[in-house]
Amino acid sequence: MSTFATVVGLAAAVCTTGANLPQLKKAWTTGQTDDISMHMLWVLASGLALWVTYGVLQNDIVIILANAISLALISGLVWLKLQTSS
Amino acid sequence: MSTFATVVGLAAAVCTTGANLPQLKKAWTTGQTDDISMHMLWVLASGLALWVTYGVLQNDIVIILANAISLALISGLVWLKLQTSS
Repeated sequence: MSTFATVVGLAAAVCTTGANLPQLKKAWTTGQTDDISMHMLWVLASGLALWVTYGVLQNDIVIILANAISLALISGLVWLKLQTSS
Repeated sequence: MSTFATVVGLAAAVCTTGANLPQLKKAWTTGQTDDISMHMLWVLASGLALWVTYGVLQNDIVIILANAISLALISGLVWLKLQTSS
């Protein structure tokens, strides 16, 4: 694996994992989550858990870490959604 | 790469890509996207574009396809957000 590809992959992982932060902050501060799809959250959480499993099977620490952090942030969003949705 | 790991990775890719469908459907049918963070959408779209680049560099068709489809779905959500948000 080239160094350039590794840098691109790490930047990609930081973006797709970090993207959950502004969404979580918005839901936390506004207390509004009605427009967020609960189906999306469950399918995404299942997919992230599968990515963590894949990372363990492949012994790939970047895949494990990026997806475990995403899963924690999405779990927070599920919790907020359960608390706030009507 | 073991066959089992490949199956887990493909299932993970299908879930994290497919999770965008119910969100897009919800935003389309309700016309409501206020609770979705625009910062999240932009950072996620940038991350997905980087994943596609990474897939091209690594010559990995699964990474290219999964993230290109996700990027198309997220672009649809950005378009709906721009149309509907106040």
